[in-house]
Amino acid sequence: MRTTVGWQAAGPATPLLRAPLERRDLRPDDLAVRVDYCGVCHSDLHAIRAHDGAERPPLVPGHEFTGTVTEAGAEVTGFSVGDRVAVGNIVDSCGECAMCRAGQENFCHTFPTLTYGGVDRRDGSTTLGGYSREYVVRDRFAYPLPAGLDPAAAAPLLCAGITVWEPLHTLEVGPGSRVAVAGLGGLGHLAVKLAVALGAETTVISRSPDKADDARRLGARALIVSTDEQRMAEARDRFDVVIDTISAPHDLGPYLRLVALDGTLSHLGHLGPVTVDAMDLLVGRKRLSSAGSGGRPATAAMLDFCAATGVAAEIELLPSAQVNEALDRLERNDVRYRFVLDMSDLD
Amino acid sequence: MRTTVGWQAAGPATPLLRAPLERRDLRPDDLAVRVDYCGVCHSDLHAIRAHDGAERPPLVPGHEFTGTVTEAGAEVTGFSVGDRVAVGNIVDSCGECAMCRAGQENFCHTFPTLTYGGVDRRDGSTTLGGYSREYVVRDRFAYPLPAGLDPAAAAPLLCAGITVWEPLHTLEVGPGSRVAVAGLGGLGHLAVKLAVALGAETTVISRSPDKADDARRLGARALIVSTDEQRMAEARDRFDVVIDTISAPHDLGPYLRLVALDGTLSHLGHLGPVTVDAMDLLVGRKRLSSAGSGGRPATAAMLDFCAATGVAAEIELLPSAQVNEALDRLERNDVRYRFVLDMSDLD
Repeated sequence: MRTTVGWQAAGPATPLLRAPLERRDLRPDDLAVRVDYCGVCHSDLHAIRAHDGAERPPLVPGHEFTGTVTEAGAEVTGFSVGDRVAVGNIVDSCGECAMCRAGQENFCHTFPTLTYGGVDRRDGSTTLGGYSREYVVRDRFAYPLPAGLDPAAAAPLLCAGITVWEPLHTLEVGPGSRVAVAGLGGLGHLAVKLAVALGAETTVISRSPDKADDARRLGARALIVSTDEQRMAEARDRFDVVIDTISAPHDLGPYLRLVALDGTLSHLGHLGPVTVDAMDLLVGRKRLSSAGSGGRPATAAMLDFCAATGVAAEIELLPSAQVNEALDRLERNDVRYRFVLDMSDLD
Repeated sequence: MRTTVGWQAAGPATPLLRAPLERRDLRPDDLAVRVDYCGVCHSDLHAIRAHDGAERPPLVPGHEFTGTVTEAGAEVTGFSVGDRVAVGNIVDSCGECAMCRAGQENFCHTFPTLTYGGVDRRDGSTTLGGYSREYVVRDRFAYPLPAGLDPAAAAPLLCAGITVWEPLHTLEVGPGSRVAVAGLGGLGHLAVKLAVALGAETTVISRSPDKADDARRLGARALIVSTDEQRMAEARDRFDVVIDTISAPHDLGPYLRLVALDGTLSHLGHLGPVTVDAMDLLVGRKRLSSAGSGGRPATAAMLDFCAATGVAAEIELLPSAQVNEALDRLERNDVRYRFVLDMSDLD
């Protein structure tokens, strides 16, 4: 085994603690990656809150990171030591089912192996995430980081970015599309930047009128305050695509009513049971969809698109030793728009 | 006023009673239609059960009928006395909103005027439905009945038919499409016939294995019994479009799991709150939609398509005096596949 160090959950409420971690010895198709930057995702918070800390295996969060290849397995051909790479929230899949064959490893019929809290397909061990200085990953699930992308600002593309890219891409958003993004947080701000870069006329829907300047700076034409009933009524049936990134449970009705005839509400921010009034779908023949993460081809395409258009996350970069401060502030929505941990302080 | 006779609800549980009814005198753009055949729709049952009978105005159900023009208003140009026509569940709309302008009068922003239990836009009276010998309708909402369509078997096309046509048409079902129809009743059997006529490979999902012969006779390649977990599992991700016509509340999860990547579940049979697990939408990037009725252009196109391909409902034709027997049997699902009332016994 290899040893490294990372930030480990010690209980649902107590701070993450710095701890030594083991990584597997390299298999022929593995890369060892020095983790340089790791984003802090809302789902990390959920995972920490659900873990009692004392249980084994331990929880090490982190599933959107960039780093540098330090060693490559004997059969690796696509990467060399020193390459910049990016890793997202999936590190393996069966490779054989219809979804894997379609390049949608995120929907693998045997469930993809998650970057942390997943079960390794070969040795049965529990995966430990990117809040650490080293990660060992199967080469298929590392992506070359395109030149021109800042490695810190690119880290959140690997979870938040691909999650909003998938519906924008699948729903063929482009010039002429009218897109609304509900919620301007980690996912939402990347949805705005990507929709604008794709050429769409983009509007932000937010509870917070004080985000209007940010919305415009990100390229949106306007911000509609979700509690402004008159403006919400005026916006009825106006958007081909509504990307709902609101992370708390909420009524989808007001957002479905913004969707144009045959348009789609893509519900991304909150996973769990969703209740909608069938009439809100029926009237206007609207569609409800969801998405999460992405397959390998889409992830690579998203990174290339971001490099070509200069899209990356707006981040607040902190030394990894401040991970607990980052989590606390994220819980209070006190970040514009994504925390990224600088892992170099773990050396 | 004009007088006619029809079948009127006397209370939620008691039989409908034959009663004299008033119809308005013809406006310049009105047609008087002798109702020849009227289909019995599940929503008629719901309306009767919700009406206490003693209240005014009375309830006269019926919103899918065919008949013969007996008189035309002074400004009517598109119809002549003696023309066969069909009327569905909408008899007026604002004509000015974005949905009306798009030919989707069924989604009119001021809500379309329903064929019964609606409020007439000019005199404020409550509309009385097609379980009657005469109906007075604005000419825009009567459709010429194409030659070659049997007037009795065509009546259910005006509600059940257009409701399933809308998603099939909008979702571009055609040769190569893989369609599943869940529930083989009034809507479902028309969904199968239309999907087959459109060239789709069509499968029925039903609780009732004894409908397998009927499913094949209607053109379906197979019937999957919904309680057969192994066959349902084998059918996972198999269908581009699933048309869910099940009229009782039910879990959408098993039907969403049949939908292929980027495919759509169109939920038609039961209106009310719908709860889905976000993961059932997320995994496979599936879409949930609904539909109900259709606009004027789609209704006319559906009738033309049915005439050209020989699609009509499979009906059991009863004298209108047996309306109560029809409603009782419909409530027990004892009909293959739609009751139609012959109104000539009202003369």
